[in-house]
Amino acid sequence: MNVLIVYAHPEPQSFNGALKDLAVSELTTLGHQVKVSDLYAMNFKAVADCDDFVRLQNEDFLKYAVEQKHAVKTNGFSKDIQEEQEKLLWADFVIFQFPLWWYSVPAILKGWFDRVFAPGFIYSRDMRYDTGGLKGRKAMLTTTTGSPKHAYTPYGMDGDIYEKILYHINHGMLYFSGMESVEPFIAWTPSHDENDRKRYLEEYKERLYHLSEVPSIPYHPTSHYDEDHQLKMEYRKEK
Amino acid sequence: MNVLIVYAHPEPQSFNGALKDLAVSELTTLGHQVKVSDLYAMNFKAVADCDDFVRLQNEDFLKYAVEQKHAVKTNGFSKDIQEEQEKLLWADFVIFQFPLWWYSVPAILKGWFDRVFAPGFIYSRDMRYDTGGLKGRKAMLTTTTGSPKHAYTPYGMDGDIYEKILYHINHGMLYFSGMESVEPFIAWTPSHDENDRKRYLEEYKERLYHLSEVPSIPYHPTSHYDEDHQLKMEYRKEK
Repeated sequence: MNVLIVYAHPEPQSFNGALKDLAVSELTTLGHQVKVSDLYAMNFKAVADCDDFVRLQNEDFLKYAVEQKHAVKTNGFSKDIQEEQEKLLWADFVIFQFPLWWYSVPAILKGWFDRVFAPGFIYSRDMRYDTGGLKGRKAMLTTTTGSPKHAYTPYGMDGDIYEKILYHINHGMLYFSGMESVEPFIAWTPSHDENDRKRYLEEYKERLYHLSEVPSIPYHPTSHYDEDHQLKMEYRKEK
Repeated sequence: MNVLIVYAHPEPQSFNGALKDLAVSELTTLGHQVKVSDLYAMNFKAVADCDDFVRLQNEDFLKYAVEQKHAVKTNGFSKDIQEEQEKLLWADFVIFQFPLWWYSVPAILKGWFDRVFAPGFIYSRDMRYDTGGLKGRKAMLTTTTGSPKHAYTPYGMDGDIYEKILYHINHGMLYFSGMESVEPFIAWTPSHDENDRKRYLEEYKERLYHLSEVPSIPYHPTSHYDEDHQLKMEYRKEK
């Protein structure tokens, strides 16, 4: 497979860095092609603005999404955005490696989504979720937390990690783009214990070995929704 | 009241800009003190890194949260972070004005949370949620969406706006900091219709007039959780 790792951590010696390094070496050993977007090392521009376009359709009023659609048609993105979009098209599998900061991705990675995931490229009126522009690819989050696992259970203090915390990323960013979002790899509070870190690296190695078999998160395809974007009755479970 | 508006949109003429401008003029007319952090106009640094500190506790290994705690104790934050923290301490009420991009805040605003919401200032082991560092203040999201309201219902295609989408912001960022998170003001797809925009501005004016009466989101206080961070039995509702 062609695997793209989008990696966001300011410290190369961090545990996130170790997980990224392990993925590069293991996946390469297993015969996969691997590319890394090391956002901090690239000094990746996080903030979406008018400089993201070679030329503007409207110089007097920046509608970012309109300029993005224009840039898709005219090949008019700044070079850094274009390169990331090309990596996405090259990839069969995308790993997002980051620490969970404020229950979401670090700003530099959020900016990667804001800028690279352009309408016309990723989605349009009839192209989203299972019909999104990156259809046929898979994506997985590999993340580290500051709170322990039990804080993220359905009755946990921080909120259910799948339904409340990672949903906006797994469903809202990855699945929206057409990628199949697979079960995340989560290292809980790895900063606290050297033995935990060793165990997580072993577990991650195992995960990488079986990467193509990691179960997808069973989100509904768009065909399960009616014309008002409501889940059809036959697909509803008792809550 | 002292009201801080943290505003994140690249285009001053946008509808987000109009909502921000309306808030400034209305709240001032009503006798409140108003400050605005216009993140794009300030060219606010989005990316958390070692430049956020006057001096580093550890030059060889950046642990961002550790440096943040050190900076709180030594008054060692970069000037832009320090100024935002001072505005937060000054404020009784904080409005976050932004377009919902990829089911979250724009990167420039995410970076504001990553950098300004420092441990030791906002939270510690025994100081979070209702006991967080910004206790006694209220916060409200004012946002605009690209999908219609019905896509964000419990059975909607994009996911319940309160439980699945805004939770990581309202609960994970605002409430975590100690602020009382009140019901958000949401303008659904305002880019589509001039009449909608007029109506939303009227509704927002009304909201601003009654700002101190906007209901808080009924999140559980930390005392409702046991020592394993689980919601105590007596506070659970049938799901």
